[in-house]
Amino acid sequence: MSRPIGTVLIANRGEIALRVARSCREMGVRSVAVYSTADRDSAVVRYADEAVHIGPAPARRSYLYVPNIVEAALRTGADAVHPGYGFLSEDPDFAQVCAENGLAFIGPRPDVMECVGDKARVRALMGAAGLPLLPGSDGSVPTLAAAEEVAAEIGYPVIVKAAAGGGGRGIEVARDRADLQEVFRRTTALARQVFGIGDVYLEKFVPAARHVEVQLLCDEHGAAVHLGERDCSLQRRNQKLVEESPSPGLAGDLRDALGEYALTGARAVGYTGAGTMEFLVDTSGALTFMEINGRIQVEHPVTEMMTGIDLVKEQIRVAAGEPLGYGQDDVRPHGAALECRVNAEDPAAGFRPTPGRLEVFRPPGGPGVRVDSGFAQGDSVPPNYDSLIAKLVTWAPTRDEAIERALRGLAEFAVRGPGVATTIPLLQRLLTHPVFVRGEHTTRFVDALMAGPRPAEEQER
Amino acid sequence: MSRPIGTVLIANRGEIALRVARSCREMGVRSVAVYSTADRDSAVVRYADEAVHIGPAPARRSYLYVPNIVEAALRTGADAVHPGYGFLSEDPDFAQVCAENGLAFIGPRPDVMECVGDKARVRALMGAAGLPLLPGSDGSVPTLAAAEEVAAEIGYPVIVKAAAGGGGRGIEVARDRADLQEVFRRTTALARQVFGIGDVYLEKFVPAARHVEVQLLCDEHGAAVHLGERDCSLQRRNQKLVEESPSPGLAGDLRDALGEYALTGARAVGYTGAGTMEFLVDTSGALTFMEINGRIQVEHPVTEMMTGIDLVKEQIRVAAGEPLGYGQDDVRPHGAALECRVNAEDPAAGFRPTPGRLEVFRPPGGPGVRVDSGFAQGDSVPPNYDSLIAKLVTWAPTRDEAIERALRGLAEFAVRGPGVATTIPLLQRLLTHPVFVRGEHTTRFVDALMAGPRPAEEQER
Repeated sequence: MSRPIGTVLIANRGEIALRVARSCREMGVRSVAVYSTADRDSAVVRYADEAVHIGPAPARRSYLYVPNIVEAALRTGADAVHPGYGFLSEDPDFAQVCAENGLAFIGPRPDVMECVGDKARVRALMGAAGLPLLPGSDGSVPTLAAAEEVAAEIGYPVIVKAAAGGGGRGIEVARDRADLQEVFRRTTALARQVFGIGDVYLEKFVPAARHVEVQLLCDEHGAAVHLGERDCSLQRRNQKLVEESPSPGLAGDLRDALGEYALTGARAVGYTGAGTMEFLVDTSGALTFMEINGRIQVEHPVTEMMTGIDLVKEQIRVAAGEPLGYGQDDVRPHGAALECRVNAEDPAAGFRPTPGRLEVFRPPGGPGVRVDSGFAQGDSVPPNYDSLIAKLVTWAPTRDEAIERALRGLAEFAVRGPGVATTIPLLQRLLTHPVFVRGEHTTRFVDALMAGPRPAEEQER
Repeated sequence: MSRPIGTVLIANRGEIALRVARSCREMGVRSVAVYSTADRDSAVVRYADEAVHIGPAPARRSYLYVPNIVEAALRTGADAVHPGYGFLSEDPDFAQVCAENGLAFIGPRPDVMECVGDKARVRALMGAAGLPLLPGSDGSVPTLAAAEEVAAEIGYPVIVKAAAGGGGRGIEVARDRADLQEVFRRTTALARQVFGIGDVYLEKFVPAARHVEVQLLCDEHGAAVHLGERDCSLQRRNQKLVEESPSPGLAGDLRDALGEYALTGARAVGYTGAGTMEFLVDTSGALTFMEINGRIQVEHPVTEMMTGIDLVKEQIRVAAGEPLGYGQDDVRPHGAALECRVNAEDPAAGFRPTPGRLEVFRPPGGPGVRVDSGFAQGDSVPPNYDSLIAKLVTWAPTRDEAIERALRGLAEFAVRGPGVATTIPLLQRLLTHPVFVRGEHTTRFVDALMAGPRPAEEQER
């Protein structure tokens, strides 16, 4: 290592914090967990080599409160900070503060984070690098008049997106010119309020498409590989429910093109570390660049199951200045993998979160099954954060078998507690639905399904 | 399928019964568990589609009592019987009774089982097929005089083995002629008593060797593949503790030779289904045939992690008359895998079994970790059977990483209950021992280590 990393502070919580701590342990790296009052009895607090309380439950006073996190890192002798996903993971200022305090930030450089965080700017950059784009604006549109001009040129409906957006927020469709007036006003206001930057940009709206993303891994020495794609089309209101690889229905030449585009894009921004390049694939098979995610993603285990590569270890190695040590030909994704997100939510009650004590929590086991969870039996799911309680990832030689294995795993998964409902029944419904089984679903599939009449047996619940 | 299998009765208990039920579920095959009174609250009883009580705790009155098992199969409409390992799995008479009752036995044909069950006979057969053998007797030796003649020819020390033996029993070393007299008498008596057949045979004793076995898969249509090897040299008194693949220190050409010998041997006996060919590799690298195991083995998940092939599904498909559908070139073991057997035993008290209630039972999770167990938190380990409570199997790109991952998994594994001790501390000691880490251990390593003085920190316990 050119900059040895002996201790990593994990600036996150839940399953991803435990995930990072596990890789640290396997590498012989000391791990420091941080926790809010709501998470004081969590699995990662028990697991990490050291744990530091950083504030009360509200994230802005703990997981988003930079001074306490940096102080914890300095006090525990950490060399590096792993931000996980969400919270501070895409905040270039945080990365900058880490650097100023002599802490290696496990992620891209601050300037690259700033670049990929501006979705209007990165869209323009990728277009210049030769990646296919949806028709849309060159960068952000400063005024409604400018937006109307672009929309008239590319044709309605259009989609208005916050340049600083993320997590499915700050995105709205405008059907016509009258609609655009309202949507432009709403989106800029929301972007200013939520992300602090009011900039928005326009793209042609694609009514039915697949969400396909490519996993990237780049070192500081110019080496870059892609680790195949993940299909994240099974979404509910832009929230991913199931992710899989390979993407069903992606033709071989399209898959190769996707990988090449991702590498080209990564080089164009000088990317380092693990990142994801998101694409839209429409029903004609045409693919267009969407955005870059400069962090480890929730669904990264799908790629780990396909390639055998531990992405968190690679992140730490890259942050330590190590070269990748292998090339594109050494990465050989094989078989099929599927991740199901098990959330503490009640799909029958509008996906209302159902926090509470997990009196029974028995994850499945056996062949081809991996479970990542931040909880153990007896732990409580706090009401303060996202409702993800476990990721069930299955691998098998074929997609059909990976689905059967996921269904087997979901059937085995015992989660019970007062008031706790889970998305398991919904996942079972989706994984057995003929449209999903045939791999023909687009990102609209779940919302359309949920809006339709429920089969009798589900109404009984 | 030429003989469709819609329902499988699982004539076993514990983790292997659950393992079989899991593959059944993924294949859409109905599973029927059988259980003794001692196992009435076990995981597989809750898991299988149906469960039938077959008798009281002693195995001879339940898991070994053929009439009750066959009756359960017929009553539940089973098409096939999976015997697991141990119990009736290597009993040709049981396979014959199944056949006579129209039940497909998931294993080799009865005549093949009889052949591979006679270790003296199969040794002779393998020799004739061209496999390298240790110097020894041609088949069994009927008298002490005959034994002495063979021993004089091959030189002392010799090893006397029961032809019908198994599980490490009925094997003894004779140092010299005086010793042989005693050993011959003892071994024939024990063989008669335990296995019902007094036949013994002789082989030259190899003081230091590795135990390396090859996984085989053969269909009824003449297709046969090997799935790479497993090294099972980490043993205590002939009981395997840790199994791994690839075998450390096996040169490339030796690995290829091993696979070829295994296929040659399988063809020589007309083998069908999943089986294992065991070899001894001495410190000079010379390999010799040991025996054939005509059943699924405890350590089969190592091979599943290396190849992605579900051996239990393959067993069921072969029993249904299906062709393998792939050739040797399609089998590509990759990376490194390690299985640790976690037993409810106290290594500090002579490996005394420690049955009891598992008040806490939290298996590890995350990347590259698979756990097969027949228990869940709150279940009790009965005192009546073997003490295996879980198999922790880890996979990683390299052996060093697979070991680190196993150590991470062992550290995460929480097993607590009144009076319950486990082999986890011993496994941690073995996996960090320089001799094991360098891959230089032979089958004598653990016994020698346990016989030596304990380090101070262990004596404190």
